[in-house]
Amino acid sequence: MRAAVVTKGEFRVEDLPTPVPGTGQVLVNVTRCGICGSDLHARLHCDELADLAAATGYDNFMRSGQSIVLGHEFTGDIVEYGPGTRRRWQTGTPVVAMPIVRQGRAPQLTGLSAAASGGYAEQVVVQESVTLAVPNGLSADHAALTEPMAVGWHAVRRSRIGKGQTAFVIGCGPIGLAVISMLKAAGVRTVVASDFSPRRRELATRCGADVVVDPGTESPWGASPKKIRINGANDLLNLAFDAMDKLTRVPGVPWWYLFRAAHTFQQGPAGPVVFECVGVPGMIDQILTDAPPMTRVVVVGVCMQTDTFHPATAINKEIDVRFVLGYDPGEFRDTLHMIADGKVDPSPLITGTVGLDGIDTAFTTLASPEHHAKILVDPRSDRTTP
Amino acid sequence: MRAAVVTKGEFRVEDLPTPVPGTGQVLVNVTRCGICGSDLHARLHCDELADLAAATGYDNFMRSGQSIVLGHEFTGDIVEYGPGTRRRWQTGTPVVAMPIVRQGRAPQLTGLSAAASGGYAEQVVVQESVTLAVPNGLSADHAALTEPMAVGWHAVRRSRIGKGQTAFVIGCGPIGLAVISMLKAAGVRTVVASDFSPRRRELATRCGADVVVDPGTESPWGASPKKIRINGANDLLNLAFDAMDKLTRVPGVPWWYLFRAAHTFQQGPAGPVVFECVGVPGMIDQILTDAPPMTRVVVVGVCMQTDTFHPATAINKEIDVRFVLGYDPGEFRDTLHMIADGKVDPSPLITGTVGLDGIDTAFTTLASPEHHAKILVDPRSDRTTP
Repeated sequence: MRAAVVTKGEFRVEDLPTPVPGTGQVLVNVTRCGICGSDLHARLHCDELADLAAATGYDNFMRSGQSIVLGHEFTGDIVEYGPGTRRRWQTGTPVVAMPIVRQGRAPQLTGLSAAASGGYAEQVVVQESVTLAVPNGLSADHAALTEPMAVGWHAVRRSRIGKGQTAFVIGCGPIGLAVISMLKAAGVRTVVASDFSPRRRELATRCGADVVVDPGTESPWGASPKKIRINGANDLLNLAFDAMDKLTRVPGVPWWYLFRAAHTFQQGPAGPVVFECVGVPGMIDQILTDAPPMTRVVVVGVCMQTDTFHPATAINKEIDVRFVLGYDPGEFRDTLHMIADGKVDPSPLITGTVGLDGIDTAFTTLASPEHHAKILVDPRSDRTTP
Repeated sequence: MRAAVVTKGEFRVEDLPTPVPGTGQVLVNVTRCGICGSDLHARLHCDELADLAAATGYDNFMRSGQSIVLGHEFTGDIVEYGPGTRRRWQTGTPVVAMPIVRQGRAPQLTGLSAAASGGYAEQVVVQESVTLAVPNGLSADHAALTEPMAVGWHAVRRSRIGKGQTAFVIGCGPIGLAVISMLKAAGVRTVVASDFSPRRRELATRCGADVVVDPGTESPWGASPKKIRINGANDLLNLAFDAMDKLTRVPGVPWWYLFRAAHTFQQGPAGPVVFECVGVPGMIDQILTDAPPMTRVVVVGVCMQTDTFHPATAINKEIDVRFVLGYDPGEFRDTLHMIADGKVDPSPLITGTVGLDGIDTAFTTLASPEHHAKILVDPRSDRTTP
């Protein structure tokens, strides 16, 4: 099969042996594979990522000396089944799969490990148990977006945001755009999106953001159409006092009941939810400094460096910081069906397509936010520019 | 009235005019007032604290040049009512109050502001609406512990810990001890407490910790009697695979239902909850590095300095960090009644009592963890050493 192989950061299209599906595995003809920001990062800094993965328990992340076929956002058609499979779908059935396979009992990250060749190729091997048939005649372009959109859906679910809470999305790259789309699919009424790039703000609007701001000229907090009710410690203390003053004046109610009511009241006013989708040092501390009290911060952007912050600021504001990664099998399945059922539209994210020979150019283009968001690889196309 | 006044870090016992209760306020004869770690910190570093409070919306925190009566963990007896009060209790009734009063509409922090004299004095002014009668003939010693125990109760509530989740309490100063006591009162079955000091480990055991460890010789994580199920990324991925492998083999069930079941399963395994009760730089990052995936970290210790951490580690482990501060009126009321009803016993925390003239010595003694946890001030005692 033809495949784009990266070695020490350089791409070369090569003819590789067609991979053989192992126990419980299926061979798939790749129709589309998205280029992910983490592919850009892994190409140049995979050794740091590998050290980090090893520290948290995964020893087989790609290393710069290895030859790797990247690509973990793929869709394709069933070619043949390995041993121990249930042969659940006919040959030719379009499928998407979570990008993990099992070698013996060891899980391997497809497209980010020398042990599991990825989707920048004509074929890829997937694990049957985490594979899904593509429903409703969904196009390969849209099916390939299942993986990044699932990252957005997971972040939204982990945020536990209510429809009435204001969402702030900081950074409108592909993941920020996926988060915006999924927030609107979840029925969140007010989504404020922030990015320095006019092109990305335009895409954010197309994904459903209610307000877009350029953080270079305007604060996202001030741009919220819904007034932020609690701006500081005084507001919080006054809220408590107002509640207590009112409640202790109600005649004929046992006073302990009033405290209980105040208690519930105090749990009530939920702050905004901020989705950090940039992933550079200083972003988290800036959010802690600028956000109103009782904000929940969901960290989706992956900052690889050591970062600094001020715990006392977060304490004084009682901020929650939730770090999120990936998705679970149910969220992956939900996302595919949300796309297929038209509940969420991934098309604003897709800004171009290239063949295997165009991947190097696509990586270069994606370094600037002004042109592209998500570029798809079509392994059978001869396009060399997106 | 006699009061211990601190000016530029120096204590002096002085005769001050008896404070006059304003609108909605009550004058109270102080019977006991606890010495808090934040009093020790405020004595020497109040300008930093004031800057931080101002940045988050409270402008009247004490400054080093001012003369301040500290003390915000007090209990006492009703003396007289100001205008606009409901006169809810007879003169002489023992009460506790949240340490905030209202001057006009502006809230002031009692014992941490020049605008609201604190409890290291024979009298203090409280706000009637946040005052509670002490029930069940509870002793002044125990009633005075309402405030710090409420901090523990708030941290436990904000953690949303389940009874079956393992709690790790890092640092066994008064707040760590309050957290341990409240975790046991909440029915949490396994509490692992960690402190370098043998004295504090002994107090942790008396507060109900099931396991105590010296972090200098042993890891708290290894000391958990309940095996930690998920130790790294491989365990997480295998958990997903095991679930999917099993579920996709169940015959006669629609496959999308299996994904839904896997979904629910994936949400199931709750990680441990860590309470950070130390508050020095590096503690949070150390917890992120050492803790298993899906840990929830509740930051109760107040680190005043800039701190560093590795966001990518927290992301790879999907860690939640919840910063907590104080308590709400309902939690304050709950805590008083939990103490009065014998549901939680604050007595292990109390290690000494001094009069106003002993406060300076008590502050010095409290700088070392080997002797005392909580020292109470009895403004009518002539004890000069705790």
